[in-house]
Amino acid sequence: MPAVAQSKIRFLQSPTQAAWVEQAINNLDEVLLDHSHCERKAAGVALNMMFRYPADAPLLKALTAIAQEELEHFEQVNQILENRGVKLRPLQPAPYGAGLKSLIRRQEPERKLDAMLVAALIEARSHERLGLLAEHCGDPDLSKFYRALMASEARHYGAYWLLAVQDYPREVVDQRLAELAVAESELLATLHFAPRVHS
Amino acid sequence: MPAVAQSKIRFLQSPTQAAWVEQAINNLDEVLLDHSHCERKAAGVALNMMFRYPADAPLLKALTAIAQEELEHFEQVNQILENRGVKLRPLQPAPYGAGLKSLIRRQEPERKLDAMLVAALIEARSHERLGLLAEHCGDPDLSKFYRALMASEARHYGAYWLLAVQDYPREVVDQRLAELAVAESELLATLHFAPRVHS
Repeated sequence: MPAVAQSKIRFLQSPTQAAWVEQAINNLDEVLLDHSHCERKAAGVALNMMFRYPADAPLLKALTAIAQEELEHFEQVNQILENRGVKLRPLQPAPYGAGLKSLIRRQEPERKLDAMLVAALIEARSHERLGLLAEHCGDPDLSKFYRALMASEARHYGAYWLLAVQDYPREVVDQRLAELAVAESELLATLHFAPRVHS
Repeated sequence: MPAVAQSKIRFLQSPTQAAWVEQAINNLDEVLLDHSHCERKAAGVALNMMFRYPADAPLLKALTAIAQEELEHFEQVNQILENRGVKLRPLQPAPYGAGLKSLIRRQEPERKLDAMLVAALIEARSHERLGLLAEHCGDPDLSKFYRALMASEARHYGAYWLLAVQDYPREVVDQRLAELAVAESELLATLHFAPRVHS
């Protein structure tokens, strides 16, 4: 792996490569379509956790707010796609999501911790990449939209991290987050051939 | 089955029996707790359909709005539970939901039609029963809350029905809805022992 500067985004081990920015900017419609799927999936992740931990009131409260925001973004991205004349269609996802999901340990209490930290890392990476799109996409309206979403993603990764430290000792969270952050950056070390939010 | 008057709620074959109202009013906390689970499940049903039909823009738009409202209600019911000092906990559901789900045919295009009509029937029944709770619970604040939710449930069953008639011939929808409505009323003909929204 090439030596990379430490990412400026909290949690992330390595910053996104310039090659991803180039790929995304050259395929904005496809990245927007993938982004729509990502928002729906993010709402699904929050809702799945709500089903798995139906007696955890603070978790339910935080995840309800996250799911609602993801659904709002889903609608906003779909509106942008409609304005650009891009029809909704299924897309083969990048291996990133499945790769991270495979790192979630199967037994409790590790499962819940890993699920929260994986969600936090995905939100952190989305925050970073939407910022890069805002900076480089060259469309003022789209930049404004990406900037608005960035703020949400930052709140979301903070919320997932906060849930983790409320439930687990701080040093356990820090150590597992560091391990998962290395894996997360490794999953993005080789650019995936298809233009995606997480290619 | 005893002879029952035609339900006043559109779609429903038989009105709710007085025995359910008595059971629910005598166990309001448990019914509220089940109601919380119902709202989360209703959001889950909408989101699952959004995952199954990712290219159906009108369906995605309608279901996003429904999922958002169910999550809002979920939060509201949880707040009421907190105010009443009722802790969130898992509850064994009534057989109603699984009974209706088993009637959804497995093959497309029947699967999508059945899923929409089953969702419409559950919303219609919820609308009827929240109205009965509003009328009989004897708590002005809770009555007001139930009345506010009733309006949403009515919109939701209308929305699911509209999605169905946009996708399928009207006579196919009417015939299948009539069959499912008979099954739905039969599932409620014998009061379930545990106090639930759909006992």
